[in-house]
Amino acid sequence: MRVHVLRIGHRLVRDDRVTTHAALVARAFGAEKIYMTGIDQSVAETVSSVCKRWGGSFEVETIEDWKSIAKQWKKDGGTIAHLTMYGVNIDKAMKTLRTRKNILVIIGSEKVPREAYELADHNVAVGNQPHSEIAALAIFLDRIFRGKQLGSEFPGGRLKIVPSEKGKVVQEIK
Amino acid sequence: MRVHVLRIGHRLVRDDRVTTHAALVARAFGAEKIYMTGIDQSVAETVSSVCKRWGGSFEVETIEDWKSIAKQWKKDGGTIAHLTMYGVNIDKAMKTLRTRKNILVIIGSEKVPREAYELADHNVAVGNQPHSEIAALAIFLDRIFRGKQLGSEFPGGRLKIVPSEKGKVVQEIK
Repeated sequence: MRVHVLRIGHRLVRDDRVTTHAALVARAFGAEKIYMTGIDQSVAETVSSVCKRWGGSFEVETIEDWKSIAKQWKKDGGTIAHLTMYGVNIDKAMKTLRTRKNILVIIGSEKVPREAYELADHNVAVGNQPHSEIAALAIFLDRIFRGKQLGSEFPGGRLKIVPSEKGKVVQEIK
Repeated sequence: MRVHVLRIGHRLVRDDRVTTHAALVARAFGAEKIYMTGIDQSVAETVSSVCKRWGGSFEVETIEDWKSIAKQWKKDGGTIAHLTMYGVNIDKAMKTLRTRKNILVIIGSEKVPREAYELADHNVAVGNQPHSEIAALAIFLDRIFRGKQLGSEFPGGRLKIVPSEKGKVVQEIK
């Protein structure tokens, strides 16, 4: 299964760290790519530096118009899941979503335009309480990949952690 | 089971939104309380306003010294789980942690002092890749409560969402 993430509604500067977290979660939890609108260059740089050091082939694409990405995705036969506290229960949606081949996950910040709800094949709620699009994305990907993504290998990196009960053990790969 | 969250290493202003997300995730995913150091007053206000509108009895406590909270927790017989990418696999740790009655979950930002690793009974990795303490907290609580927290009721709120396939349906409770 191929999962891409589309982050919309980024507001300059004040959202930088939240957007960086969202991108790193997308990568660590098995998505292949994130599209982001209006980000500061530092966000893309942080993510790209993580990819270089820790491996894998995650991609970041800065876009102008999120709607054209979403529309093209549907035209190509892909499925869109929009994460929102107003949507239907994630466990309910998961039964259908797990059978799909290409999923675009839309996450927003505080205000998400009406069109996102309409373009989505599934408006999915990770609980119906306000919390965080970072948490929602993590839980969504965790459910889609059934937790197996946490054991994934990220080939090509320079660093690798050796799990440890106390302290930090990092291997440098030469 | 009672779960409290301790957020350490908040750096003024630039971490405000991330800390707010962490607090909202703690609440929405079934923790009873979060302790935070050095936060801006706006963080506590945002969280408290969410609690008023959406219900439940989640607490925020601003603290000076995280170590004394952690030490007291252990003295009272509680267990400490520190979330870190350097730790042992979450599924491994979960077997023991699910049998515990009182868990203090420590989450940090970029640099976590050595003492956190030492005070922790379990250093738990939600995957060994860099991502986000917000995502790590969400997955940890999701595993502890086996996903059931997403269906929890939050009594006393003024607003309640009616899950919907398209759009936003919010009930006002009078």
